[in-house]
Amino acid sequence: MTAKLIYEGKAKKIYETSNPQLLMMEYKDSLTAFNALKKGQFAGKGFLNCQISTHLFKLLSKNKIPHHWISTENKNQMTVRKTKIIPLEVVVRNFVAGSLAKKLNIEEGLPLSHPIVELFYKDDALGDPFVNDDQALEFKWVKQDQLIEIKKLALKINDILYSNFASVGLRLIDFKLEFGVDDQLGLLLADEISPDCMRLWDMETNEKMDKDRFRRDLGNVEQAYKQVLERIERIQI
Amino acid sequence: MTAKLIYEGKAKKIYETSNPQLLMMEYKDSLTAFNALKKGQFAGKGFLNCQISTHLFKLLSKNKIPHHWISTENKNQMTVRKTKIIPLEVVVRNFVAGSLAKKLNIEEGLPLSHPIVELFYKDDALGDPFVNDDQALEFKWVKQDQLIEIKKLALKINDILYSNFASVGLRLIDFKLEFGVDDQLGLLLADEISPDCMRLWDMETNEKMDKDRFRRDLGNVEQAYKQVLERIERIQI
Repeated sequence: MTAKLIYEGKAKKIYETSNPQLLMMEYKDSLTAFNALKKGQFAGKGFLNCQISTHLFKLLSKNKIPHHWISTENKNQMTVRKTKIIPLEVVVRNFVAGSLAKKLNIEEGLPLSHPIVELFYKDDALGDPFVNDDQALEFKWVKQDQLIEIKKLALKINDILYSNFASVGLRLIDFKLEFGVDDQLGLLLADEISPDCMRLWDMETNEKMDKDRFRRDLGNVEQAYKQVLERIERIQI
Repeated sequence: MTAKLIYEGKAKKIYETSNPQLLMMEYKDSLTAFNALKKGQFAGKGFLNCQISTHLFKLLSKNKIPHHWISTENKNQMTVRKTKIIPLEVVVRNFVAGSLAKKLNIEEGLPLSHPIVELFYKDDALGDPFVNDDQALEFKWVKQDQLIEIKKLALKINDILYSNFASVGLRLIDFKLEFGVDDQLGLLLADEISPDCMRLWDMETNEKMDKDRFRRDLGNVEQAYKQVLERIERIQI
């Protein structure tokens, strides 16, 4: 089968499959940051993120979270259900870091009393701006009932990931999710769940084990991603 | 009575009064924009804003909106109830303009299907960043019940101002409110309500009649503020 490329993003390629309801998602070896102003790559990065995502989608399946993942046949390719993607990046934070730390001039690592959810409008040309619920609803990026469900799911996913990561010595600082809508199945978690879109700190050393190593030139990016996969493989599914 | 200055802001001075529950708010002739990077002034601007605010507080009184205004004795000085100010700028928008237009690259003047509310954390050093409800609650800038009440009040104030401004040919594009808490009276609208903190367009010509004339060097700032006062004085109270 010659798959037809229908979209190429910064870290993934999406192909049509013979089944119109399914897509093939290929994880690339490239790494980008700051809206692709910074670019890098390492061999095997696509494989690592694909495997990490696969494990985490399985973990979420076990916990009854609806998602788009179907199967992972090859080392850096997974089959997913085709959905209509909601153009919002949904960020859940357990600790202050990244854009929130910068915006409020707070040191990274301050624990939050409750997880908080933030929305960013997915638009590269605009730089994925931070938006609020009123804006997301007014511009019809999401419907009211979907937004309520998305927040509920995002916080439930956070609970699941937080405790499971903690069981293998990883502190889940924050992460970004995307959601899609399937005509039959409704709202599904989509995109990927990997160190490209989360902050993970080693619980003992506070060492960063995610894309911040690339963003901030901390070195050992590949080793960190490998370590994350090794630890996540230890989570009982 | 020699009043003691307890705070001087960009456009107002606040004095203690002989009554510990009351403050005297003096409107200055200065104009600032872009977090005070741009500065200007014109004689009589404090008088105009004080009179406009006075009329609008009276209008809100008639409509049973709780606020801090008590009386206006002098041309640029009003007595207000002392409150604990909630450190949020509450923006209500009826049309796209300003920071929202810039963020989403939308032309100014697009009507919104419903008024939207935005929160900005009042902190000059941080540049008054845009925040969402989760952040405002997490950092304890406001309590949950207060936030619900603030949004309800802000939308009710919008309804009142929008229709009354329309009756004198002014289109209320957006405006910024601040709220304070009084131990006895609870949540009160505070600060000022003037062309310094709202966008008003002439309904026939779309001419801007607010601080954007100063921000954007459109000229005739004083004439616009005078025109706003003249029109607002025509509103039946």
